[in-house]
Amino acid sequence: MNRLMKSMVIGGLTVAVVSGATLVGASQGTSTGGAAKAQSKNLIVLIGDGMGPAQISAARYYQQYTKGASHLNLDPYYVGQATTYADRGEDGDTVVSGIVTDSASAGTAFATGHKTYNAGISVSNEDVSKPFASVIEAAESSGKATGLVTTARITHATPAVYASHVRSRDNESAIASQYLESGVDVLMGGGKQFFVTKDEKGKRTDKNILPDFQAKGYKIVENAAGLNALTSKNTKVLGLFGNSHVAYVPDRTAETPSLAAMTSKALNILSADKEGFVMMIEGGRIDHAGHANDLPTLVQEALDFDAAFKTAIEFAKKNGNTSVVVTADHETGGLSLSRDNIYEINIDLWDKQKHSSETLAAALEAAKTPEEIRSIVTGNTWITDLTDEEIQQIMAGDGSSYKREGAYNAVISKRLLVGWSGHGHSAVDVGVWAYGPIADQIKGQIDNTQIAKAGAAILGVDLNKRSQELQSKYVYPKFKVSRDNEVLYPAEALIKALGGTYKGDKATAKLSLQKNTVDINLTDKTVKLNGKAATSTVDVDNGVLYLPLSTFSQLKGTTLKWDALSERIALR
Amino acid sequence: MNRLMKSMVIGGLTVAVVSGATLVGASQGTSTGGAAKAQSKNLIVLIGDGMGPAQISAARYYQQYTKGASHLNLDPYYVGQATTYADRGEDGDTVVSGIVTDSASAGTAFATGHKTYNAGISVSNEDVSKPFASVIEAAESSGKATGLVTTARITHATPAVYASHVRSRDNESAIASQYLESGVDVLMGGGKQFFVTKDEKGKRTDKNILPDFQAKGYKIVENAAGLNALTSKNTKVLGLFGNSHVAYVPDRTAETPSLAAMTSKALNILSADKEGFVMMIEGGRIDHAGHANDLPTLVQEALDFDAAFKTAIEFAKKNGNTSVVVTADHETGGLSLSRDNIYEINIDLWDKQKHSSETLAAALEAAKTPEEIRSIVTGNTWITDLTDEEIQQIMAGDGSSYKREGAYNAVISKRLLVGWSGHGHSAVDVGVWAYGPIADQIKGQIDNTQIAKAGAAILGVDLNKRSQELQSKYVYPKFKVSRDNEVLYPAEALIKALGGTYKGDKATAKLSLQKNTVDINLTDKTVKLNGKAATSTVDVDNGVLYLPLSTFSQLKGTTLKWDALSERIALR
Repeated sequence: MNRLMKSMVIGGLTVAVVSGATLVGASQGTSTGGAAKAQSKNLIVLIGDGMGPAQISAARYYQQYTKGASHLNLDPYYVGQATTYADRGEDGDTVVSGIVTDSASAGTAFATGHKTYNAGISVSNEDVSKPFASVIEAAESSGKATGLVTTARITHATPAVYASHVRSRDNESAIASQYLESGVDVLMGGGKQFFVTKDEKGKRTDKNILPDFQAKGYKIVENAAGLNALTSKNTKVLGLFGNSHVAYVPDRTAETPSLAAMTSKALNILSADKEGFVMMIEGGRIDHAGHANDLPTLVQEALDFDAAFKTAIEFAKKNGNTSVVVTADHETGGLSLSRDNIYEINIDLWDKQKHSSETLAAALEAAKTPEEIRSIVTGNTWITDLTDEEIQQIMAGDGSSYKREGAYNAVISKRLLVGWSGHGHSAVDVGVWAYGPIADQIKGQIDNTQIAKAGAAILGVDLNKRSQELQSKYVYPKFKVSRDNEVLYPAEALIKALGGTYKGDKATAKLSLQKNTVDINLTDKTVKLNGKAATSTVDVDNGVLYLPLSTFSQLKGTTLKWDALSERIALR
Repeated sequence: MNRLMKSMVIGGLTVAVVSGATLVGASQGTSTGGAAKAQSKNLIVLIGDGMGPAQISAARYYQQYTKGASHLNLDPYYVGQATTYADRGEDGDTVVSGIVTDSASAGTAFATGHKTYNAGISVSNEDVSKPFASVIEAAESSGKATGLVTTARITHATPAVYASHVRSRDNESAIASQYLESGVDVLMGGGKQFFVTKDEKGKRTDKNILPDFQAKGYKIVENAAGLNALTSKNTKVLGLFGNSHVAYVPDRTAETPSLAAMTSKALNILSADKEGFVMMIEGGRIDHAGHANDLPTLVQEALDFDAAFKTAIEFAKKNGNTSVVVTADHETGGLSLSRDNIYEINIDLWDKQKHSSETLAAALEAAKTPEEIRSIVTGNTWITDLTDEEIQQIMAGDGSSYKREGAYNAVISKRLLVGWSGHGHSAVDVGVWAYGPIADQIKGQIDNTQIAKAGAAILGVDLNKRSQELQSKYVYPKFKVSRDNEVLYPAEALIKALGGTYKGDKATAKLSLQKNTVDINLTDKTVKLNGKAATSTVDVDNGVLYLPLSTFSQLKGTTLKWDALSERIALR
């Protein structure tokens, strides 16, 4: 029985839409006086990657203009907004404040309830990082079915934070391998390249891991027909609908499923589990189109996501025991709905681009003459009066890594009357939408970590307990590889992460763990284990002492193992 | 201003995004069985002009960085967001979709519950406009005390929509004069220039109207000391704290009250009324700093507004019978919190500008040499390494009406790592915050018109009834002035607005009202009144017939009067 409202009143000419959140709050207040804790058996998390406030407004105005729709499917479920900031920390070669997040740190926040540095995939912001459990991992432990669905590579940051742990989001081969051990039942998206080797157009250097998935019972599908043929008897599915990301909406063929189609099938499979399920559905390429500054494609991707939400909310309403939460990880592109001091957006032109700018990028780069540029632009758009100045702008590129594609989108955006501040993310708060018992816990102004905490609370699963289990198995250290190809670890950070102590100055260092002690003379680089001469590489780099794993194994009295793929130390 | 000449039809824009009425009905149905209606005796509306989502995030991150504050005063009261679009209609010399609103149309929406064209001050979007009553006008009718407080000119669009009606927001002299008749008890802001003539540095061509306010019992104060000296016995107050707008926060002297100080005093006065009160408090210059792209000043203005909110919310909590609602009219500037592909904002530099860019504008324009520019910039900022390129950029101006001030802000903004899409407004949805019974009626995704409707509902005042009273007194026609200085009106639109009929073709026109008829031969321009030859100017302009007011008076059988200041026809 659905505890939430089952129907809504449609009156007069106005489309009346009732906020599920409002009704839930009201009915709970009346029926329980706030005494009982509202729970859901199932949780569906939807993430619009890069879907900031302007992206939402843009999609709505487009739907109104082109379809006469009064609102987005999402709109009636708006409950608040979330801050998205990351931890202060390293981001590539620099240290950033974290105010502008990336998808990895934002994802870590809303999947695990913990902030981390940009690029960190569900690990702590430390020199030797601890893994943080996601709501999906906690649900998996409690016997629920789980799923990850995205239009990005399934190994991309947003799905990754729910079922893997790595120091760097770029380590997508490790993320794919960790999925194999994750227990996640349904994995759908792009990213086949991180499951196969170069022989099969892949990026892995070790081996093709698809047979390993099959050995674990995963049915592998690679196109819409394969997706459609799945039934709820296929309890484990790996859907790979692209070598890299799933094709953008305007570039899709009949081979490529929509996000709604993936969502529908995943729900069909996961809801067959009697223990309930948790799934994350990502509109992963709203972000990519934002990075490229390709507004027409961005809007199509946002609407693809909104259609997937419709599938999810209809399921939830029918099911009666499902909470749904929707948010974004961050805004992308610094999108503005107006520009150049003009009080207008030329929304009548927003549906007049045939394909994404991504499909033009190679041809634009290869073009030798202004006429070739003109031909490419006019072939893909409504523009018949491309100026010489615009052609020169495209040929010059925009100075970013998007080069001529970026300049093409700058030309298009100027004519559409939308602005961008660059190709990166921005720090504006993002919307939160919800349905079911979770709504009461995330309304108003929240931080994105609250989404993980509320999800765990309504499911009755324990994030801390699951994190402790993970932390007893692995640590994720910074490391360096010596000229002799030896892997070395920061001694102070690692011994402390292992529960030991470190004392040192410029001349000596003493590491202690349990009953064992290593003394190091930093000058002559001699080492003593429990007072006796021992052998170990001793590397001092910028004042930081690095030691090999064997030395830490001696201190711990057990053999620690280095997982070179996932760049982590197995503690047992 | 450079505006596109184009027309378009926006489908669905007049359809409510979410019916607030339904939301209210639903929650009331659950909690009270539909019996009681939650009401408040008092209503405080706060408008952050130009305070879009990025402006809010910027102010919060600044407070966190510089003050260690965990959140804005506003944050705990966030309840949803509102669409801001205007009606499709004329905006200056062009027709715009209305997707990008101005303050006048947005204000008309949240003050009266009706959409209109950009620049319209609480009048309908018609050739002969009808006035729409605001929640303040309806409350005034019901005997409540009322107030308008702003840091902009008190005659600026946002306060104006609450207590005046004009076709063009630029008609600020008329707005000032209409305030005299409005019954609004407390008026505080800048804008003295629209109350006095050129002799007193004013803009009025008729007379100084301050004595008229004094004659009606208004105490006039013009500085902080005067404000502080007011007591609740000063039941009528006109505070004019600037000839134009109130000085920006970083430019204020001890003479200039903060918005919080104005708010506190206005609350003290208005809350003494036993019938209750309604007031609007505007942070009017968040918008101005956004237009100029002056981020440091924008943040200070947003925090000045947030402090005024604190004053208001503390009053409301203590009072116990007051609803508070906060929103913005629109976003200004297309602000983005990041730029140039960099995942950072240099927030440590945001408090290192001494005064607003507005204070530098004249000096920047007057500067003759690069060294003068350098001196101005280094004198006002932390910058000691201004490059030749930046100096050249400033000297060249930014191509907008902001000229060198705009270019100065472009240089500053690039160093602060914030982006702007121009000097105009944008179409992104804006936040809504609320406290008290009104909160339930405006949460989730709403349209800004719902704020007026909800305000009237919780006060128990009737917007429609008050609108009908206003509409029985005045209509606001388009008009033209002939070479002979005769005011002429569009015949078809006006006769219909007066309740009559119009039949016409290229050769003839027949206007009928009550028992009277005017027949016009458009070729020889002869006129018959009830079949007898009559005299009237006959002017056909672009196919539209224009006639003088005397002819409409003859048709109506009463003398219609033209109010040339307010550009309206008095019907009785």
